[in-house]
Amino acid sequence: MNQHLLDVSCGKCYADLVVINGQIVNVFTGEIYSGGIAVSGEYIAAVGNIDYCIGPDTEIIDAQNNYLTPGFVDGHIHPESSNLSIRNFASAIQSHGTSTIMTDFHEIGVVSGLEGIKAILKEAEETSLNIYFIVPSHIPCAPSLETSAFHFNPETISQGLEDSQAAGISEISGFSIISRDGELLQAMDICADKKLSLQGHLAGISGTNLTTCIASGVAADHEAVSESEALERLRSGCHLMMREGSVAGNLRDCLKPIKKNHLDTSNTSIVTDDLHVCDAVSKGHLDSSIRIALAEGIDFVTAIQMVTINPSRMFHVEHQIGILAPGRRADINITSGPEDFRILSVISAGKLWMENNRILTHYSPAAHDSILLNTMHMKRPVTPEDFHIHVSEDIKRVQVIAMKTESCALITSPVKAWLNVKNGIVQCDIQQDILYIAQVERHGKNGQIGKAFMSGFQLKSGAIACSIGHDNHNVIVLGTNFEDMSLAVNRLNEIQGGQIVVNEGKILSEISYPVCGLLSDLPAEELAAEKEKANLAIQNMSGETTITVPFMVLSFVCLSVIPEYAVTDHGFIDVLQEKVIDPIIAFEK
Amino acid sequence: MNQHLLDVSCGKCYADLVVINGQIVNVFTGEIYSGGIAVSGEYIAAVGNIDYCIGPDTEIIDAQNNYLTPGFVDGHIHPESSNLSIRNFASAIQSHGTSTIMTDFHEIGVVSGLEGIKAILKEAEETSLNIYFIVPSHIPCAPSLETSAFHFNPETISQGLEDSQAAGISEISGFSIISRDGELLQAMDICADKKLSLQGHLAGISGTNLTTCIASGVAADHEAVSESEALERLRSGCHLMMREGSVAGNLRDCLKPIKKNHLDTSNTSIVTDDLHVCDAVSKGHLDSSIRIALAEGIDFVTAIQMVTINPSRMFHVEHQIGILAPGRRADINITSGPEDFRILSVISAGKLWMENNRILTHYSPAAHDSILLNTMHMKRPVTPEDFHIHVSEDIKRVQVIAMKTESCALITSPVKAWLNVKNGIVQCDIQQDILYIAQVERHGKNGQIGKAFMSGFQLKSGAIACSIGHDNHNVIVLGTNFEDMSLAVNRLNEIQGGQIVVNEGKILSEISYPVCGLLSDLPAEELAAEKEKANLAIQNMSGETTITVPFMVLSFVCLSVIPEYAVTDHGFIDVLQEKVIDPIIAFEK
Repeated sequence: MNQHLLDVSCGKCYADLVVINGQIVNVFTGEIYSGGIAVSGEYIAAVGNIDYCIGPDTEIIDAQNNYLTPGFVDGHIHPESSNLSIRNFASAIQSHGTSTIMTDFHEIGVVSGLEGIKAILKEAEETSLNIYFIVPSHIPCAPSLETSAFHFNPETISQGLEDSQAAGISEISGFSIISRDGELLQAMDICADKKLSLQGHLAGISGTNLTTCIASGVAADHEAVSESEALERLRSGCHLMMREGSVAGNLRDCLKPIKKNHLDTSNTSIVTDDLHVCDAVSKGHLDSSIRIALAEGIDFVTAIQMVTINPSRMFHVEHQIGILAPGRRADINITSGPEDFRILSVISAGKLWMENNRILTHYSPAAHDSILLNTMHMKRPVTPEDFHIHVSEDIKRVQVIAMKTESCALITSPVKAWLNVKNGIVQCDIQQDILYIAQVERHGKNGQIGKAFMSGFQLKSGAIACSIGHDNHNVIVLGTNFEDMSLAVNRLNEIQGGQIVVNEGKILSEISYPVCGLLSDLPAEELAAEKEKANLAIQNMSGETTITVPFMVLSFVCLSVIPEYAVTDHGFIDVLQEKVIDPIIAFEK
Repeated sequence: MNQHLLDVSCGKCYADLVVINGQIVNVFTGEIYSGGIAVSGEYIAAVGNIDYCIGPDTEIIDAQNNYLTPGFVDGHIHPESSNLSIRNFASAIQSHGTSTIMTDFHEIGVVSGLEGIKAILKEAEETSLNIYFIVPSHIPCAPSLETSAFHFNPETISQGLEDSQAAGISEISGFSIISRDGELLQAMDICADKKLSLQGHLAGISGTNLTTCIASGVAADHEAVSESEALERLRSGCHLMMREGSVAGNLRDCLKPIKKNHLDTSNTSIVTDDLHVCDAVSKGHLDSSIRIALAEGIDFVTAIQMVTINPSRMFHVEHQIGILAPGRRADINITSGPEDFRILSVISAGKLWMENNRILTHYSPAAHDSILLNTMHMKRPVTPEDFHIHVSEDIKRVQVIAMKTESCALITSPVKAWLNVKNGIVQCDIQQDILYIAQVERHGKNGQIGKAFMSGFQLKSGAIACSIGHDNHNVIVLGTNFEDMSLAVNRLNEIQGGQIVVNEGKILSEISYPVCGLLSDLPAEELAAEKEKANLAIQNMSGETTITVPFMVLSFVCLSVIPEYAVTDHGFIDVLQEKVIDPIIAFEK
């Protein structure tokens, strides 16, 4: 028991810090009223009339009649998608009012295992970002369809759940429940026994399949992409995480049934899932989503509840965070009002962290644990020939299924196209936007290369590659020619991972990701600038495409659990059939 | 994982039971719409369109367009207050739609310890009432002010929290937090470490004292008795349990700030605290409270949420109960609508338990564990002289503070009165309604007798006594003369506890409580009839009094944590000063 906190709360001792002259957004009652907040150490000691807490040494922050909200909570985010190392990531989102994230560090786990995740959590301790660890449930995501460095079996998951920051298991695949994946069900039982939260990944799941997933204990899902999916989840007793991130933006659609049917909002929250560093810098984080919700006509307090008490209650941590109330962590945002919602100042774990948009606390760079470094283990350099897709030499044309993708959607759809064959090698078709795509195993396990065809990126020349390929993090490469593709992949191996743009034998842009081949050590603004440069280089190589964040979209093309197609080191994947298929479906001699 | 449940949910197997043609009250979304519910074993398999779950052997219940609600949850009730043994209690409240209770069995714990509580939980296993055990935090309630048979130290509480049904600790005394009771704070830390719920008992606590209690981690309180207390608790981030029971009825007052300020209701619930068997029989349980809430203008779904999802979410068990959704326990009420709200039929843990008000499942009487029996251990029979309050023989009159109590209020207030003295013995004054009251230790520890004066009961002759005296369960006796008082107490010792009415040397009514001296083995209706007879006997001995349930009010006069006064075996207690005081404050010679 924190007796000093109790002493401050009752006026026996003075507060370390107070915020005065605020408009308190009380997410517990749904009210807004004038008042202040007194802080002792990392915790809130009192809220309301807190004059009695002010002593001679108390730091006084005048909110100047601005709003005071709890620090925001992102109930489902993968920090790795920002490509920022954790301290820079923390800084980036804290400056937008986020104080807590629920995250599985799944990507780190794929490359460096539970030990790697613990090393990242250790790095994060230097920051005041509050992290709940939601243990990844599916590493690898699809064991029979991809190669990862690590495998999380029920024992690993059980071990992860012992972590003091553990609050559940994440990304429980709906399809794996439906197919009665024994290891997954076992892990779910372990988690339920510990009274921790079962977080779903119910992409594309509806009807009786959804019923089965909820019956199995799944408490929340962040994969609703339409009005009907959102409504169905809520009616089924499934907490609706309305995703608004860099890859998928479903908030507006998810809000539709809520507005239309005047639904109870207490079982809804806003999450990001993935946040691109450029978006973090230019748009923000949950503050940006609140602006969208407000623009959609959601009441101010209701919108704030969706990023505070609602997720904290969902994870059973409302006694710790998500409410401006005594005993909770002193994570306080000073914000403007609903008309032009902005984070002005941030108090983080009791310390003034950002004042009038000026960050006061700068985190030192981490000396990364060795388990996080030197993780690129390709069996051998690739050659251009490695990317050939062969057919019999007498075939002139083949009809293929290519994956087509779009910006802000994880889903890939099929597009059929006829491609020419030269000397038994299927040729891409830049006119039709049917390009080569491949994934090269990089964990030193088997050196496999899976190949397929891709549409949507509109590259006219060159190749792009990166060492981030969900959820196995082998090297994914897209190109118009085999030479640029092999150059890109080999260079990534040399620099221990990253993202690269190659055109006609020249490297136009490269950003290295020394941490697990996933994370840069650049600060957010610098990394965003580098990425903008890379994107510009890609744009210069492209025709008209809707894909504005090509590397992020590229990394999702390997995701063998999101319909309809994927490419992994095993080959071209039919997600619903859960098997490798031949992209070639017909030929002409 | 319950794989058969999953098979039913997805249509691979048929349901055991379905309810069709219902109006589903969806407490998750706040909607009401037509649909059915499919049940597999004890659990809900599907909700909505469940035609696919109906097989040739499925039991079909036609709801005839009535409403389907989740079984009700009482987040704070002491079953012992009904004086029913647990199976009869279960039957009584299940017939009113209650499927789950959160309870500490504190009274059993006082008399028979944790082992006794476990014996009661074992008895309850025969029923389908769902019980979460909220470990009592304060046995004895006030160690320096009363004698109990057992003491729950942090080790006992920790042991209790290991129980599979444990969901928190209960009745955390606000005053003990404020006085920094070391054992209590230690128990709270143990509970918080286990991520279980800290349930407060914050009677009379407000202002900075309330702030301190919330800062210590208290998550809920059931002791708000006024509009301002209710508002203050909610604004402080404290779940508001609005009590509407046999002893205290605070629901209307608690609803006032909610209606006035349009507060978020998701952090409010309705609880009983104490439910008299006569009320259970004549009025009902939470169904009766819902009728009050509806009459107060609360929306139907909101009222249902207050006794379903809200308490279940408060206790972090919303994945198990409180929602009509797949995977939850199949506790379903078929009810009439808001105009004339009644429970028509009850499905309990998947079985049709009551059909059109006819109970189908009758529980067999329990063979009580020996730890629950023969618990009256008075050191010796009392004599009339034991109840004398002596002063010096030359004193003619004394001024005393008597406790005054009223029906439906736990609080006692002081009333000053002058009393005559005869031969150095202070005399009661029937005209002024200042009577003798005493508590006699009965756990075989010390044989102490505490004495004081009482107002409010208006007895004109005789005495009443019972072996229930919160929270120590010594024998409490109220009377107009010493002879009837001693007869009453000694007879209670002979019959192993109960309640008794004596007048002029004759026993007018006695009901025995063989279980811990607290619980009868009579079914609810029979016990209620016996109690009505006893009440009638008391009424015949009384003038005009507002006290309609004299034995229940009597049992609360010993509660040394509810202001302003109490009597225990230690003597007359000033609750706020936490000490024994002399009821005599002045004298005339």
